[in-house]
Amino acid sequence: MFQELFTPSVQHALDIAGIFVFAISGALLAVRKNFDVFGIAVLAEVTALGGGLIRDLIIGAVPPAAFTDLGYFVTPLVATVLVFFLHPHVERIQVGVNVFDAAGLGLFCVTGTTKAYEYGLNLTSSAALGLATAVGGGVLRDVLANEVPSLLRWDRDLYAVPAIVGATIVVLCIQFDALNALTSGIAVVTAFALRLLAMRYHWRAPRAWNRRSAATEEKATAQ
Amino acid sequence: MFQELFTPSVQHALDIAGIFVFAISGALLAVRKNFDVFGIAVLAEVTALGGGLIRDLIIGAVPPAAFTDLGYFVTPLVATVLVFFLHPHVERIQVGVNVFDAAGLGLFCVTGTTKAYEYGLNLTSSAALGLATAVGGGVLRDVLANEVPSLLRWDRDLYAVPAIVGATIVVLCIQFDALNALTSGIAVVTAFALRLLAMRYHWRAPRAWNRRSAATEEKATAQ
Amino acid sequence: MFQELFTPSVQHALDIAGIFVFAISGALLAVRKNFDVFGIAVLAEVTALGGGLIRDLIIGAVPPAAFTDLGYFVTPLVATVLVFFLHPHVERIQVGVNVFDAAGLGLFCVTGTTKAYEYGLNLTSSAALGLATAVGGGVLRDVLANEVPSLLRWDRDLYAVPAIVGATIVVLCIQFDALNALTSGIAVVTAFALRLLAMRYHWRAPRAWNRRSAATEEKATAQ
Repeated sequence: MFQELFTPSVQHALDIAGIFVFAISGALLAVRKNFDVFGIAVLAEVTALGGGLIRDLIIGAVPPAAFTDLGYFVTPLVATVLVFFLHPHVERIQVGVNVFDAAGLGLFCVTGTTKAYEYGLNLTSSAALGLATAVGGGVLRDVLANEVPSLLRWDRDLYAVPAIVGATIVVLCIQFDALNALTSGIAVVTAFALRLLAMRYHWRAPRAWNRRSAATEEKATAQ
Repeated sequence: MFQELFTPSVQHALDIAGIFVFAISGALLAVRKNFDVFGIAVLAEVTALGGGLIRDLIIGAVPPAAFTDLGYFVTPLVATVLVFFLHPHVERIQVGVNVFDAAGLGLFCVTGTTKAYEYGLNLTSSAALGLATAVGGGVLRDVLANEVPSLLRWDRDLYAVPAIVGATIVVLCIQFDALNALTSGIAVVTAFALRLLAMRYHWRAPRAWNRRSAATEEKATAQ
Repeated sequence: MFQELFTPSVQHALDIAGIFVFAISGALLAVRKNFDVFGIAVLAEVTALGGGLIRDLIIGAVPPAAFTDLGYFVTPLVATVLVFFLHPHVERIQVGVNVFDAAGLGLFCVTGTTKAYEYGLNLTSSAALGLATAVGGGVLRDVLANEVPSLLRWDRDLYAVPAIVGATIVVLCIQFDALNALTSGIAVVTAFALRLLAMRYHWRAPRAWNRRSAATEEKATAQ
């Protein structure tokens, strides 16, 4: 049904765009981590293609698009060259990483959910896999850079929630036969905007400290 | 042969139980690492489903059970909610992580070995994949938490050996046509008990320090 | 075409040799990291089979060779035993890790590229997957050991380039119908020799510091 509205070429263009912005984010982190040019290329490739690779392995789409579509492979190399020669001054890098990462997050949660559903997964699993597609590359990036994934850290602004919202919009659109380029775009922009707002206003998720803090305070009071 | 004795529903129930206890272990570690509620959920999902996901990708069972069975996906979320609201005081967390982890270890080495054999792997590979199923989630958990996997550390009590014993019992039972719910249960309990004993009495595996220590001592003596 | 010249048994022997030397490298790193005997075995297995496992999952060769060929599984255990009882004195370990790692790098970039092409990938993707096969095990090794992968670090001698050269030689030989045991061997030795030379003369790749350094210097000058 929605395949007629949401054409393969739109899917492909969105994928390339998502790959490019994620690759920029990976390459910028590699610069910040002081990696050499090959390390930058590897981190760009892994960040850009990692989420989609995980998705494709899980839905059984082998060989994954990352290894059959030359554009998917070359795009991160273009991003590497751009970052290598044009990267902003070091104090402005973190902002760039975050904004590009937010754009990739929005794009991939939508394309990931759509592709998973096209391969026959149920709606809940499609949304979960859309989330995995969106955050997988960034998690692999952070693991390779030997950092705690920013996805998991309490002191980072909301990251998973925007992707969950974007994937949920896609799933609801599928449920009500309303998925097309427009609604997909709305889902992308919503997730992207939510992530930007989360960064701007430092929205954070709660930790499970209540009981511990209470216990610690009781102990402190008792002493 | 053994499929008649070891029914799919028993397999499924054991899988759900293993997923639940591993998810508790992952969620408790996430609390100890100070992650937010989404980080807790992600670590619970990865710890619980990671080993089975690796197994399913390797035996070619795609999409993996983690993405086709809604119960597998929801169970770690239940564990997340439980841990988030009811987690024990922080000084008791490590004990909980270890005991639940031991239970998951016992369950998964048995179900992983069984499923790998059902998919046509030979006995040795089935046992190896049972071990990978049992320890894979915990290794992914530690890698995501940016810690050296406790599986590998010399200063941690025996972890792989109980799973190897459990997987070996299953393989021997298959070899002698004796695998059923009872013998599977024995394998689970044996692996679980061995792990608990290893923790209680601090059983550890030897390191390869003999020659180095000898060399160092000789050098020290010569001076 | 080239299958007649490059026989399965040669492919298999090269694979076993690559697995062995990579396993030695993984086991030696495990000794240096102070892991116990099971940690040594796990790191040997992962380092040796990780790259091929990634390759096989991506090209859809499941179950991967690592789980169907008993020799692939046992070889790292032999390496573990050798390292456990015979490992060199600790100050000489790093050299051993590097030389064995270089040999594995040369072997795997060739066999990985060849197998990927046999499974129908295009030439560029085959070379990329050959590189992934060659460096994948080492990256997994470093991630499990909780270190920044040496593949990415600027202060390490060229690592990816020798593998890229080796894979490119294989791809060019395929292109010109000239792949056989001799040319494959040349590719292996070229990659191995390049890596050894890179270590000997500390060849390094550039980082993207130009603009930042310039900016920093300008700022310093302005003050």
